[in-house]
Amino acid sequence: MRELAIGIDGGGSSCRAAVADRRGNVLGRGKAGPANILSDLDGSLRNIVESAREALRDAGLPAETISKVSAVVGVAGANVGDYAARIGRALPFADSHVVTDALIALQGALGDSDGVIGAFGTGSVYKARRDGKLRGIGGWGFIVGDQASGARLGRDLLEKSLLAYDKVRPSSPLTAKLMAEYGGDPERVVEFAHASKPKDFAGYAPLVFDYAAQGDEIAVGIIKNAALAIGENLDALLWPKCPAICLLGGLARPYEPWLAGRHKALLTEPKGDVLQGAIDLAVKFLQGDRRVRHDG
Amino acid sequence: MRELAIGIDGGGSSCRAAVADRRGNVLGRGKAGPANILSDLDGSLRNIVESAREALRDAGLPAETISKVSAVVGVAGANVGDYAARIGRALPFADSHVVTDALIALQGALGDSDGVIGAFGTGSVYKARRDGKLRGIGGWGFIVGDQASGARLGRDLLEKSLLAYDKVRPSSPLTAKLMAEYGGDPERVVEFAHASKPKDFAGYAPLVFDYAAQGDEIAVGIIKNAALAIGENLDALLWPKCPAICLLGGLARPYEPWLAGRHKALLTEPKGDVLQGAIDLAVKFLQGDRRVRHDG
Repeated sequence: MRELAIGIDGGGSSCRAAVADRRGNVLGRGKAGPANILSDLDGSLRNIVESAREALRDAGLPAETISKVSAVVGVAGANVGDYAARIGRALPFADSHVVTDALIALQGALGDSDGVIGAFGTGSVYKARRDGKLRGIGGWGFIVGDQASGARLGRDLLEKSLLAYDKVRPSSPLTAKLMAEYGGDPERVVEFAHASKPKDFAGYAPLVFDYAAQGDEIAVGIIKNAALAIGENLDALLWPKCPAICLLGGLARPYEPWLAGRHKALLTEPKGDVLQGAIDLAVKFLQGDRRVRHDG
Repeated sequence: MRELAIGIDGGGSSCRAAVADRRGNVLGRGKAGPANILSDLDGSLRNIVESAREALRDAGLPAETISKVSAVVGVAGANVGDYAARIGRALPFADSHVVTDALIALQGALGDSDGVIGAFGTGSVYKARRDGKLRGIGGWGFIVGDQASGARLGRDLLEKSLLAYDKVRPSSPLTAKLMAEYGGDPERVVEFAHASKPKDFAGYAPLVFDYAAQGDEIAVGIIKNAALAIGENLDALLWPKCPAICLLGGLARPYEPWLAGRHKALLTEPKGDVLQGAIDLAVKFLQGDRRVRHDG
């Protein structure tokens, strides 16, 4: 009988792992580079495994334990094509359950209760649990989705800065700062955009929030637009007696003041973080609970 | 003294070449695959050269002539970083002048006259010549620019279709058709988006125009949004006595009915096409005219 569970939060900025016993006590933690399975599958696999190895080391467990643990890996894009199955096969754990980042986020935030979560980091994704049934939306990646993601905020900033450079749209202190960072050279902005992964674009999100808080018009426009997208997505999931909305991820706090009043009124502190959700699910699998498999 | 000029229109959908004598008489034409130098430099170089080889063959000239001709290559992104220099060094011509697609488009459309052009194909770009001085805007690529490009229309359609699938935004006959093409599976839409180049996204542009003409609300929204972007860009370049606006590229005609009245009033038929502009410039270089070098 397996005795150890590993929960892994495979995020767009880093992978975090924790090893726990059958009762959910965390024995060790690990961290490695990002997982962006759609844009870099091999690198993502390396980082997922490295974060697990580090958690086992942190727990003082021998390296070969990795082949004896039951793991839950939550990662954006796990619902796309056969990625979950491919990742599952490539991982060295005894059992691998590859689920969406949204599922582990919901489990961490709500435990086993009903409610809606929105997670805002490099990507953005929403999930609801209503009468125990799960429904997820968003999380399609920043090229054709993730309207409130850090990656989209950064991409929007670059686009608005180039429009300001061309004098097609107004400039602002924020677009001036962005252009100055590239020596005032739009070609270098374009080169950055073409060489960049979602995480690189998302690196500009804090700057956009900072300038929006100071009233910079371009920054305010970008954030308001993203906050509208959040509102539309929450409205698509909410039901009249929904007890709670939890906002998660690095951009949750910055977005709070920009939300509509009807959503602010439902905001609840998450019970635990995304990694905690992965640990919870991994422990449930270890205990033989199969109900948590529903995902999408 | 060199006797032959080659003009090459290195477009996002195909490369077209024509070889001409010192007086501009076209002796042969060739065509090859696309040039997207920012996303696929090696493939672009191959296609540029192949189109030239085909033009020489078409003219009945020996293959080794390629090293004796003076060439002008117009290609999107030629103004980014050191791409123009890198391409110039890699090409087999006696002289290579790598300029933006916008410059050859302007030369083709206006000849040596003043005016404004907007070119709409896989990408979108604008250029003005006022009192002989050139000013270009746009053409930054569809990731952070090219708001009225075919690639952006296609990307918008995919994004709107996913929002409709998630029931965040309304669906329409167009989004239903798009989703049906992917078996109703949003994951396949996302896979396509992540594997796609600008040209692939732009493949949807005609569909969006067709549905917009039939009044499809999502299609109308996408086209109106792009037409607004065209208006903003034209306004940024126009001056009170500007004599002409030429719209070029495969999407020029479809966009016409969506333009603002003040812009429609200035529309003029282009004198020649983009390839003709490349030929003109190549012949000018062959004749020793260096004034045409200004670009950006």
